[in-house]
Amino acid sequence: MSSDDAQFAAQVSEQVSEQVSKQVAETTRRLYELGWMRGTSGNVSAVESDDPRVLSVSASGIAKHSMASQHAVRTDYRGAALAGQDLRPSAEARVHAAVIEATGARGVVHVHALSSVLAAARWPDGVLLHDAEQLKGIGREAHGDRVVVPVVPNSQDMEQLSAEILARLDPDVPGVIVAEHGLYAWGSSLEDAVHRTESLDWLFDYALGLDALSTRTPER
Amino acid sequence: MSSDDAQFAAQVSEQVSEQVSKQVAETTRRLYELGWMRGTSGNVSAVESDDPRVLSVSASGIAKHSMASQHAVRTDYRGAALAGQDLRPSAEARVHAAVIEATGARGVVHVHALSSVLAAARWPDGVLLHDAEQLKGIGREAHGDRVVVPVVPNSQDMEQLSAEILARLDPDVPGVIVAEHGLYAWGSSLEDAVHRTESLDWLFDYALGLDALSTRTPER
Amino acid sequence: MSSDDAQFAAQVSEQVSEQVSKQVAETTRRLYELGWMRGTSGNVSAVESDDPRVLSVSASGIAKHSMASQHAVRTDYRGAALAGQDLRPSAEARVHAAVIEATGARGVVHVHALSSVLAAARWPDGVLLHDAEQLKGIGREAHGDRVVVPVVPNSQDMEQLSAEILARLDPDVPGVIVAEHGLYAWGSSLEDAVHRTESLDWLFDYALGLDALSTRTPER
Amino acid sequence: MSSDDAQFAAQVSEQVSEQVSKQVAETTRRLYELGWMRGTSGNVSAVESDDPRVLSVSASGIAKHSMASQHAVRTDYRGAALAGQDLRPSAEARVHAAVIEATGARGVVHVHALSSVLAAARWPDGVLLHDAEQLKGIGREAHGDRVVVPVVPNSQDMEQLSAEILARLDPDVPGVIVAEHGLYAWGSSLEDAVHRTESLDWLFDYALGLDALSTRTPER
Repeated sequence: MSSDDAQFAAQVSEQVSEQVSKQVAETTRRLYELGWMRGTSGNVSAVESDDPRVLSVSASGIAKHSMASQHAVRTDYRGAALAGQDLRPSAEARVHAAVIEATGARGVVHVHALSSVLAAARWPDGVLLHDAEQLKGIGREAHGDRVVVPVVPNSQDMEQLSAEILARLDPDVPGVIVAEHGLYAWGSSLEDAVHRTESLDWLFDYALGLDALSTRTPER
Repeated sequence: MSSDDAQFAAQVSEQVSEQVSKQVAETTRRLYELGWMRGTSGNVSAVESDDPRVLSVSASGIAKHSMASQHAVRTDYRGAALAGQDLRPSAEARVHAAVIEATGARGVVHVHALSSVLAAARWPDGVLLHDAEQLKGIGREAHGDRVVVPVVPNSQDMEQLSAEILARLDPDVPGVIVAEHGLYAWGSSLEDAVHRTESLDWLFDYALGLDALSTRTPER
Repeated sequence: MSSDDAQFAAQVSEQVSEQVSKQVAETTRRLYELGWMRGTSGNVSAVESDDPRVLSVSASGIAKHSMASQHAVRTDYRGAALAGQDLRPSAEARVHAAVIEATGARGVVHVHALSSVLAAARWPDGVLLHDAEQLKGIGREAHGDRVVVPVVPNSQDMEQLSAEILARLDPDVPGVIVAEHGLYAWGSSLEDAVHRTESLDWLFDYALGLDALSTRTPER
Repeated sequence: MSSDDAQFAAQVSEQVSEQVSKQVAETTRRLYELGWMRGTSGNVSAVESDDPRVLSVSASGIAKHSMASQHAVRTDYRGAALAGQDLRPSAEARVHAAVIEATGARGVVHVHALSSVLAAARWPDGVLLHDAEQLKGIGREAHGDRVVVPVVPNSQDMEQLSAEILARLDPDVPGVIVAEHGLYAWGSSLEDAVHRTESLDWLFDYALGLDALSTRTPER
């Protein structure tokens, strides 16, 4: 590569990086507005480039309602921060990286959605979803398709949590609930991961709503 | 028609088209904010012109929170895309077109409102609404009027779904629930269809709330 | 009054009118955002001037999320539109005027808040509120004060509805629930009426929440 | 200190004061948007300077959705307004000051969150929180840590209320619920206090949700 080519490539790379950082920030603010990132909880990631893989991950401890592009941190394929950055990535960057590695996802969302932890408390062996048009939002069938969203135990050891998620992950289900914690969901882009997060939250609320109905109308 | 007249008519038509597209986009963003279009779900349509009839329909797979005018697709009276457009209309454009054809509506809203699918699960033979001021929001009486919102089974075959809706449609009720799916509502304009969607959602929440009250206070 | 004085008075009056119309519009948009004016429901009013009394009332059938100053209609002390205006005031302007006449309120809010109609369904003889700091928001005591918000039957006859409300109105309670319909609340200004509406809605939700708790924990 | 130095110090102090007032106002508007400051309820405070300590406290009776910097009032270390200000601080400034004095907090939030009063009604001897990732948002452990948020009786006597809170306050729990009233939470900055408020609200909703689940699925 000539020196001109290298300079050009660096410029392109920087533009992509800025674009991805901006998307990570905008997405984070939007997920906060949806009520899923209270008290600095939650984090998102997107693949910025491959070969070598670079991820853009929301920084640790940031107030999510005001996250800006400069609060996105670049990490390697294992979620470790690249050198020369002031902020640390979220501790859960390791899990994001593992999910991306295992699934080929290009974006990952982690949120503390109440619907997900209540569904996991109700159905600790996995949350069964079936017969709902919204299932198409996670790439499944609206009729006769039985989808079980895995539930894994919570852990503060990111290696262990990643291993649990990968062990239980169903390649045909783009999400896993961490019990007593929240939801991971992923997709072919960060936007796609958000859509799937929205669909899963809707489906959990629907399942819990049907469960409450069946309790108060036992004859049904 | 002189060449000048034809040019003028074409300009007027283009202005109307832009206006309708803008309204389709604004309405979609607003319905997303109300929580009814999660995960790219839902779609809206408006009649753009008659003779021949042209509809403006939200495109398939669009992120609803950021829908813009260019994401509105023009279709014929059956919901098939007019030639020369990059985006595809929502698959459910066929249903919108059928409702417009059958009812004379000028706008149709389809949303994945949790209230509608929970009400359909509770009352699968039709959702009875009665004695509520908000019924006036769907053109009915606040007192002594018994309104049953039809519930039809979900289907992925748009011809079949349209036929089911038309078969069950009550000309005096501007909405139908598709079980395990969501709500269709319509009106004399897209804005009117939104008002009726809001009223139906309120009425479903009210009916479900009364039902929960009656369970916990059986003596009533 | 000299011709100059009259012109000055007219200018002042017009400025006040514009200011009140703007407040009526802003308040309406805010109440829509709070979820209480779905499907064009609800309306607000404010006293614009006395001697003779002129009210500014939200127009009938307006989409509340986009209400603008020009959608405020001026009425006399009985809620009848002053001459020379294109829009009609809300049909419920009569009730607003009656409440203002009877209570000396300067602003009235009418909303279709689900909390109010569910509370009225649960406690049809009046909604008892007690022992809550938020009661101070409606001018009552936080401790040992028993507040009963009257519930009146719904009616489409505005004279009759006004008479029912005035008959049941408690001068120490700034609100009345119309069963199967919604809430009227009032105050020393439109802003004050909104504050009281917010407080009443909070108190109804609290009462319904306590009621649900007591059902599922009967031993308490 | 030279006259120049004094002038410079005064300028710096004024800038800090403006900055803190702006933060008090922005935070208040945000807490209103979250639904926790209805009907002028709630208030926040931040330490503006030490030696002598000056607090910035939201003014009494302000409409929270439109609070501006000029609605922040400066008080001494006991919550008494400094001379020369038009607005009065919230009556609860005394409690804010006492919490700051006792805990070393730099920011305090008081909100009428329904989750807090319903949790206090359900568990009047203290709200037990355990085994939830969100506990890290209040500085506790996600696993095996038993956190009890104290509940104190409501009072209109600010000295008494302050004394009750200080008597029951757990130095390892950054919040106290005032029964039939609302929540106080604090932190190392006003922003931190807001994060902890958000976390506590999430945890109360989670605890109440688990409680409802356990009622309708008694076999669990």
